[in-house]
Amino acid sequence: MYPLSENLFAPLNSWYVAAWSDEITAAPMERWLLEQPVVFYRRSNGTATALDGRCPHRHFPLAKGRVVEDNLQCGYHGLVFAPDGRCLRVPSQPFAPAACNIVAHPVVDDGTWVWIWPGDPARADLTLLPHTAVEGFRTAVRAYRRVCGRYMLLHDNLLDLSHLEYLHAGGIGSAGAAEVLEHRTQGEDWVKSEREQVDAPCPPHFQALFGYSGPVTRRFGMTCHVPALHVGYDEFAGPAGPLGRFRVCHAITPGRKGETHYFVAASRDFALDDKALTQGMNSALGKTLDEDVAATEAIEQMITSLREEPRDVLVRGDATCVTGRRLFESMIRRELQGR
Amino acid sequence: MYPLSENLFAPLNSWYVAAWSDEITAAPMERWLLEQPVVFYRRSNGTATALDGRCPHRHFPLAKGRVVEDNLQCGYHGLVFAPDGRCLRVPSQPFAPAACNIVAHPVVDDGTWVWIWPGDPARADLTLLPHTAVEGFRTAVRAYRRVCGRYMLLHDNLLDLSHLEYLHAGGIGSAGAAEVLEHRTQGEDWVKSEREQVDAPCPPHFQALFGYSGPVTRRFGMTCHVPALHVGYDEFAGPAGPLGRFRVCHAITPGRKGETHYFVAASRDFALDDKALTQGMNSALGKTLDEDVAATEAIEQMITSLREEPRDVLVRGDATCVTGRRLFESMIRRELQGR
Amino acid sequence: MYPLSENLFAPLNSWYVAAWSDEITAAPMERWLLEQPVVFYRRSNGTATALDGRCPHRHFPLAKGRVVEDNLQCGYHGLVFAPDGRCLRVPSQPFAPAACNIVAHPVVDDGTWVWIWPGDPARADLTLLPHTAVEGFRTAVRAYRRVCGRYMLLHDNLLDLSHLEYLHAGGIGSAGAAEVLEHRTQGEDWVKSEREQVDAPCPPHFQALFGYSGPVTRRFGMTCHVPALHVGYDEFAGPAGPLGRFRVCHAITPGRKGETHYFVAASRDFALDDKALTQGMNSALGKTLDEDVAATEAIEQMITSLREEPRDVLVRGDATCVTGRRLFESMIRRELQGR
Repeated sequence: MYPLSENLFAPLNSWYVAAWSDEITAAPMERWLLEQPVVFYRRSNGTATALDGRCPHRHFPLAKGRVVEDNLQCGYHGLVFAPDGRCLRVPSQPFAPAACNIVAHPVVDDGTWVWIWPGDPARADLTLLPHTAVEGFRTAVRAYRRVCGRYMLLHDNLLDLSHLEYLHAGGIGSAGAAEVLEHRTQGEDWVKSEREQVDAPCPPHFQALFGYSGPVTRRFGMTCHVPALHVGYDEFAGPAGPLGRFRVCHAITPGRKGETHYFVAASRDFALDDKALTQGMNSALGKTLDEDVAATEAIEQMITSLREEPRDVLVRGDATCVTGRRLFESMIRRELQGR
Repeated sequence: MYPLSENLFAPLNSWYVAAWSDEITAAPMERWLLEQPVVFYRRSNGTATALDGRCPHRHFPLAKGRVVEDNLQCGYHGLVFAPDGRCLRVPSQPFAPAACNIVAHPVVDDGTWVWIWPGDPARADLTLLPHTAVEGFRTAVRAYRRVCGRYMLLHDNLLDLSHLEYLHAGGIGSAGAAEVLEHRTQGEDWVKSEREQVDAPCPPHFQALFGYSGPVTRRFGMTCHVPALHVGYDEFAGPAGPLGRFRVCHAITPGRKGETHYFVAASRDFALDDKALTQGMNSALGKTLDEDVAATEAIEQMITSLREEPRDVLVRGDATCVTGRRLFESMIRRELQGR
Repeated sequence: MYPLSENLFAPLNSWYVAAWSDEITAAPMERWLLEQPVVFYRRSNGTATALDGRCPHRHFPLAKGRVVEDNLQCGYHGLVFAPDGRCLRVPSQPFAPAACNIVAHPVVDDGTWVWIWPGDPARADLTLLPHTAVEGFRTAVRAYRRVCGRYMLLHDNLLDLSHLEYLHAGGIGSAGAAEVLEHRTQGEDWVKSEREQVDAPCPPHFQALFGYSGPVTRRFGMTCHVPALHVGYDEFAGPAGPLGRFRVCHAITPGRKGETHYFVAASRDFALDDKALTQGMNSALGKTLDEDVAATEAIEQMITSLREEPRDVLVRGDATCVTGRRLFESMIRRELQGR
């Protein structure tokens, strides 16, 4: 599916953000991830649990059931499932058949985010779990958006930061951002894009945060960790020295068909206890995301309204985007070939 | 279509409930039944009439027309149809061509329900009309729900009464209902499931109705008259003797694609004139149906959201359900083979 | 697609009404026409401009961009397009590739309506532009409706004026309108239907306009200029002489898939400055269009709800309608054959 090749959806054998850590409680919660229903709950010892969200008997949503002694009981005919997915009980018969077992998804709760491995549980690899914490930085604000659009459009958006000058004009972008040279580096499952703007106007949102409106040198970049996370940095200095440094994690997870979960956490390394600054960051982040989401949804509507799926015209500034798309395609194809 | 085999929809040469008797008045009313539009009106002599709901000329809904001397005139270009479906007049020409005739569906108004034969009118057979009245019982309450889901899910629901303990916990179900032995009998076009719970807790809704909260012996069962009706009984006795007996008719009729009409009438054989009791039954019936409809619609959404149509895992308690589904499939296949 | 043959949509190499003239301003506006997105804006010299509404780079709606010195800049990554569709600038590179050029649609602004040629710009032919102004008549009222239905249903509606007696009973129609003889004339790309009702009751809406309720002679007709416009006349006379003459232009333009734009302008040749009369016309036009739109949308819903696409039964009064449909089909087929 555009912008990937036809019939390619997304890698499944990877870690994706499923939820904020504090969303998972003792009460079952359904969330669709990678076009599958998943039910989450927290066991009495605090462990986050993720099971297939559909009872295999009659397809009733297990999130409408209840947790009984750390097991999940279906609310329709009473089948009981253990946190490891085994069916423990079928009320109408004396034993529980193995055919009733369901998938338990590997999950990792890092305190901020709950990560899920939606593919083959046997291949879940903790060494692949992204690290999002950095010394000296503290998460200041976070935001979630449910996006009515295919997930790759959000990746496309972050893979081409030249959009800051136009889509975020009057916000986090300023004139000239699209023209500066882009430095690109890449690895097997990541691609990084970096830019430096010297003696540039300070973008409006940052003027408000710094209380400074003079010229700045801005260094900013974004690393796309395929397939689920972008980590960006944004650093400002004025003639008198550094003004501040930010770090933003963008977690992108396909939800239901045509729907994407977008989780964002932004941190800074200065004035960590300044609440007014945090409020300002929160407001700036919200407005920026609203612009990104509106653009993504407008493109989704455009694509789906056209009689035929459109093809891109590629320009020089698309090199990082094209690299990123290729990494996604390679990862999906390797997975489909069983590797 | 799940839970039936692919491409099997529903029997057409059978009686289905189309409406409550008092819904049919002199004014035309459209209702989609078995994925066909039907227009109903009552003639001046009181006879309920059902015609194809679509004008054959330009597909205008005939229910937007008007009744003129017991005939129905289309509201678009004025074609007139007799209660037997013959086109009597085309305003722009002197005669009415036979090509403009429409189907008149056989209907039976039994005073409570209006039954329709949506298939071949020539095969309509009054001896097949279900009887829903029973001596000593009087209909106390009735309810209608428009269900956003395929009709077979409602049959599945009634074909497995073990759901009472879980879906209707705190209502008409109580602990242990799912475990008791099920007695099953069947015929060519029906299957009956019966259970007896001895010394069981009285379910909350019935405690309220009887003003009694001690242990009960409960005998309950359901007969599925394929393809359109379930008739259930529910009988309670305490240590001091009978508490009360109920009888519930569930009429299930496919509507538009993916939509089902669900008509329910409940009767009792005791305290027939007790209005408070009737109000209590009404409230209990409404809550129970809301739970059934919510479950049905949740399953429908689950099935249609999945990338592939799911397959059931069958357990022992599904024997009646499987029998019922087979009766539906046989009836549909016989009809497709012209028998 | 019904009522045309399968796979036939609409002629593209023709003039269609895109907007009211005063809708086009300096600010970009998106409108879907013939299932394509188009962005309109007015240049500083007042010229109406219509470009493909989709940026070829990432499919962002160009209407969300801004006009800079008569050029349109995409709001996502800043590509700039001239009014003739040439891409003038891609910010991330020093030159603009021809692959980024977009289509500029020929437009004509006649002061009332903006006409667009949605097909091949090289074939745009000003001599084919319909003339809608008539000496002695002045446009009194206009109305727009967004119709949720395929455009041909609106043509079908106007191609059979026998509907006045039934659909517009109590409004612009009166008894007998459907029975009078129809006179039909036709050309290569038009068909005209005319009727005369002698000594007929004055229809309610016109009673109100004329302040007269006696018998009338009414002459009325409609010319369908395939594929985008109907021009109708409606003339009334009483025993004491002429009561008034009306002229109504109906512009029908396919929008998004399954949606149609319907623009109507009505004029008269009497009491041109009578504001109360104009208000009366406005009210009568609005009610009439609401009836037409309700019928169209009811038929659209009927057709799309049926399991199979229905076929018409044709009657004598359909001769004009069948002629009109054939003209549409011929025009589309000629276009598909490259002629």
